[in-house]
Amino acid sequence: MTHSIAWANHSLPDFFSSFLIATVPDAAPGAESASSSLVLAAVLLTLIVIYAASKIGAEICTRINLPAVLGELVGGVVVGISALHLIVFPEGGFEAADSLVISFLQLTANISSTTATAVFQSESEVISVLAELGVVILLFEVGLESDLKELLKVGPQATVVAVVGVAAPFIAGTLGLVALFGVPLIPAIFAGAALTATSIGITSRVLTELGKLNTTEGQIILGAAVLDDVLGIIVLAVVAGLAKTGEIEIGNVVYLIVSAAVFLIGAILVGRLLNPYFVVLINKMKTRGELLLTSLVFAFILSYIGGAIRLEAILGSFAAGLVLAETEKQEDLQKQLSPIADMLVPIFFVTVGAKTDLGVLNPTNPVNQEGLILAIFLIIIAIIGKLITGLTVFGKPGINRLAVGIGMIPRGEVGLVFVSVGAASGTLNKATEAAIIMMVIVTTFVAPPLLRLVFQDKPQAIGEVETKS
Amino acid sequence: MTHSIAWANHSLPDFFSSFLIATVPDAAPGAESASSSLVLAAVLLTLIVIYAASKIGAEICTRINLPAVLGELVGGVVVGISALHLIVFPEGGFEAADSLVISFLQLTANISSTTATAVFQSESEVISVLAELGVVILLFEVGLESDLKELLKVGPQATVVAVVGVAAPFIAGTLGLVALFGVPLIPAIFAGAALTATSIGITSRVLTELGKLNTTEGQIILGAAVLDDVLGIIVLAVVAGLAKTGEIEIGNVVYLIVSAAVFLIGAILVGRLLNPYFVVLINKMKTRGELLLTSLVFAFILSYIGGAIRLEAILGSFAAGLVLAETEKQEDLQKQLSPIADMLVPIFFVTVGAKTDLGVLNPTNPVNQEGLILAIFLIIIAIIGKLITGLTVFGKPGINRLAVGIGMIPRGEVGLVFVSVGAASGTLNKATEAAIIMMVIVTTFVAPPLLRLVFQDKPQAIGEVETKS
Repeated sequence: MTHSIAWANHSLPDFFSSFLIATVPDAAPGAESASSSLVLAAVLLTLIVIYAASKIGAEICTRINLPAVLGELVGGVVVGISALHLIVFPEGGFEAADSLVISFLQLTANISSTTATAVFQSESEVISVLAELGVVILLFEVGLESDLKELLKVGPQATVVAVVGVAAPFIAGTLGLVALFGVPLIPAIFAGAALTATSIGITSRVLTELGKLNTTEGQIILGAAVLDDVLGIIVLAVVAGLAKTGEIEIGNVVYLIVSAAVFLIGAILVGRLLNPYFVVLINKMKTRGELLLTSLVFAFILSYIGGAIRLEAILGSFAAGLVLAETEKQEDLQKQLSPIADMLVPIFFVTVGAKTDLGVLNPTNPVNQEGLILAIFLIIIAIIGKLITGLTVFGKPGINRLAVGIGMIPRGEVGLVFVSVGAASGTLNKATEAAIIMMVIVTTFVAPPLLRLVFQDKPQAIGEVETKS
Repeated sequence: MTHSIAWANHSLPDFFSSFLIATVPDAAPGAESASSSLVLAAVLLTLIVIYAASKIGAEICTRINLPAVLGELVGGVVVGISALHLIVFPEGGFEAADSLVISFLQLTANISSTTATAVFQSESEVISVLAELGVVILLFEVGLESDLKELLKVGPQATVVAVVGVAAPFIAGTLGLVALFGVPLIPAIFAGAALTATSIGITSRVLTELGKLNTTEGQIILGAAVLDDVLGIIVLAVVAGLAKTGEIEIGNVVYLIVSAAVFLIGAILVGRLLNPYFVVLINKMKTRGELLLTSLVFAFILSYIGGAIRLEAILGSFAAGLVLAETEKQEDLQKQLSPIADMLVPIFFVTVGAKTDLGVLNPTNPVNQEGLILAIFLIIIAIIGKLITGLTVFGKPGINRLAVGIGMIPRGEVGLVFVSVGAASGTLNKATEAAIIMMVIVTTFVAPPLLRLVFQDKPQAIGEVETKS
C-alpha cells in the first residue's frame, strides 16, 4: 500500500513550523509548540535571578542583624521594576523589551521580538503562579508549625486586635483625609481601606525566622493577621461596591462573612474528623512521596475551596496545616515541606519586591511632592493605628504589647492589592495613589527589623537567633 | 488641596474591571489581573488531579509487582485525552470546554467562557513548565545519585550501545518501510528517526525505583540514554532539514555534535574546578535553604545553557548533578532534593500519560486498521533494534545483557516529540502517524515491567524492592 497522494499534501507553513520546532528540540512534554522550551528557558533564567537576589539579600541582612525576609524583599526591589529591570511583569505596563531576562534570552537564543513577547507573557504567568504557590506553601508550613489549641486560646485577643487594627486606621485615615486634606469621600475611603491590611506572608515569615511563632505574642499576631485577611476581603468588597454603585451591598458582605466563618470552622472540624483516616491511608501506602503528596492534595483542595468561594487560597492551606499539625505525621511532613518552602517561598517575596515601584519616592516628580504630605499622614496613621492594637490585648499579663502592635504593621502584598484595585477603579488620583504606595513600602520594610528589635529586647529572647536549616 | 477634577475622570470599563477584581480578591502578587487567582485555582485543581492519579496508579502497580512509574503513566492516561478528559492541553487541539478541570472551575467560580479560555491557556502553560521542571529535577537527582567515575568507566560500552541503538532501528525501520510497505523515503526516514529515541526520563526513573542505578548495567543504560538523547537531537535536526530542503545540513550537524561535546565535557571540567569554592560558599552562608538554592542556581544555569545552545535543559541538570555528586554536600543535597522531586516529577509522568492518545488503538477506525500492520512492523524493529544493543557490551563478563537492551526500549516523551515534529512537517500521513504513536505507546508501557522482571531474575536482586522514602 502506497500513500503517494497523502504525502504530497503538505503546505509551506507546516514546513516552516517544523523547522522552527526542529531548531529548538526538546524532549519534554509540551514540546509540540515551538515556544515551550523557550518558556522553560525564560523561567529558569528568572528563577536564577530570583534565587541569587534572595540569597544575596538575605545573607547581607542577616549579617547586619536584620531579618532575612527584608533582604529578599530588597533583593527583589534591586532586580525589579525600580532598578535593574531583570524581573518585570506585563501587569505593570511593561513589555518584553523592558525585561532584561527576556532580552538576554533573545540574544542567546536568537528569537524574534514577536516570539519574545509571547515568551514574556507565558514566563510572567508561570512566575506569578509559582509565587502564589510559594505563599500557599508558606501558610501551609506556618499552619503546620502552629498549635491549633494555643491559637484558639488566644482567639478572643486576636479577634479584638484584628477588629481594632482594621477599624482604627480605617476611620482615622478616612476622616483625616477628608477633614484635613479635603480629599473627596470615595478616594478617602479607598486610602482608609488600604490602611486596614496586614501582610500575613511577611508577618508569619518574620515570626518563623525569629523562632517566635509559638509564643503567645506570635499566636496572637498570627490569629489576628488571618482574621485581618478575612476582614480585608470584606472591606475591599464593600469599598469596590461603594465606588461602583455608591451603595454598600449588604448581601455581598453577609455572604463573605458567613462563607469565611463556615469555611474556616468547617475545614478544621471536618479535617479533625478525617485525621485518623488520613494517617491510616498514608501508613498503607507503599510508594515514594506518599505523605507529602497526600498532604499537598489535602492542602490544595482546601486552597481551591478558599479561592472558589471568593476568600483566599492561603486561608485554605493555613487551615490544612493547622489540621495536619494535630496528627502524628506532623514532624515528618514539616521536614519534607521545608525544602519545598525553601524553593518556592523566596519567589513570592522577591516578586513582591520586584513589583514595588520605588519611583514614588523620587522627590523630583511633582506628583510625588504633592503626595508626600498625604503619605506622611498615612504612614503615621498606619503605624499608630496598628500599634494601639497591642494595648487591647487583655488577660495576658507580661505580654509584649509593642511586639503585637508592630507585628500587625506590614501591609506588604495585601496593601499592593488595595492600591491596584483603587487604581483600576479610577477613583484615585496619581498623588493619592503614590501616597498609598509610599505608605505600603514604609510599613513593609520597617516592620521586620522593628519586630526583630522588640523581640530581642525581651531578656528571654537573647541568644535565640535564626537557625540554619 | 482638592482633586475634584481628577476624581470625576473615571470610565465605565474601569469600574467594571474594578468590580471583577473586587469579587475575586487575592492577596498574592499578580492579583492586578482578574484571572490571576483563577489561574492559581485551575493549577491547584490540576495538581490535585495529577497527584491523585499518580498515587492511585503507583499504589496499584506496586501491589501487582509493576514499577510505580508505569502506574503514573497509566494514571495520566486515565485522566488525560484518552479517557476522563480531566487534563488536556491546547496543543492537542483541545479547548477550554474539553477540559473537565476548567469546566468544574467554570461551574464553581461562575466565570464566562472567554475567561475560561484564557485561564485554560495559562493553566496549561504553567502545568507544562512544571512538568518540564519536574524532568529537570529528576535528571538532577539522577546525576546526583550517579558516580561520574563509574559512568566514565563504562563510557566506551555506553557509546557503542547508544550508537548501535540509534543506527540499527533507524536503518532497519527506514529500509523496511520502503522495501516492504512501499512508503516514500521522507516519511520512512521520519518513522525510522522516531525509532531511535530512548526516554531518559522513564529509563532513569525505573532504574532508581529498582535501586539499580548504580549497577554496571544501570550506568551503561544511563550513559547510553544520555548519548542517545544527544544523537536523537542530531537525527531530528537532520530529518527536519531533509524534509524542508531535501538536503542534509552538514553545518548544523557539525554544530550540534561540537556543542554537545563541548557542553558536556566543559560543564563537568569547569564544575569540578569550581566544586571547592561551592562548598566554601555554602559553608559561609547563614540563611535557610543555602545548600538547596545554591545548587539549584548551578543546575538551572547549566540547564539554561543546555537549552540555549539547542541541546536540552535536562542534559544541563544531569551534568550539574554529576558534578555536585563529587562534593561532600552530596548526601545533604540528595535528602533536600527528594521532596522536591516527589512533588514535581509525577507532574511530568502524568502529563506524558495524559498527552498519549490511545485513540490510535481503536480498531474500528479505518486509519488505525491501515496503520496496524505498519505498527506491528515498527514495534518489532523498535524492540529488536534496542535489544541487540545488549549484545554489543564488551569487556564486562557476567553482565545482564538483556537488562541493558530492555533499558533502551522505552521511547516515551522523546518518541512523542518525533511524532509531533513529523506531523507538523506534513510529511506523515494519518496511518503512519498512528503507527508511530502505537509503537511509542507499546515500547513505553512494556519496558518498565520487563526491566523489573529481568533485574529480579538475577539472584542478587531478590529482596531488593522499592523503598519508601
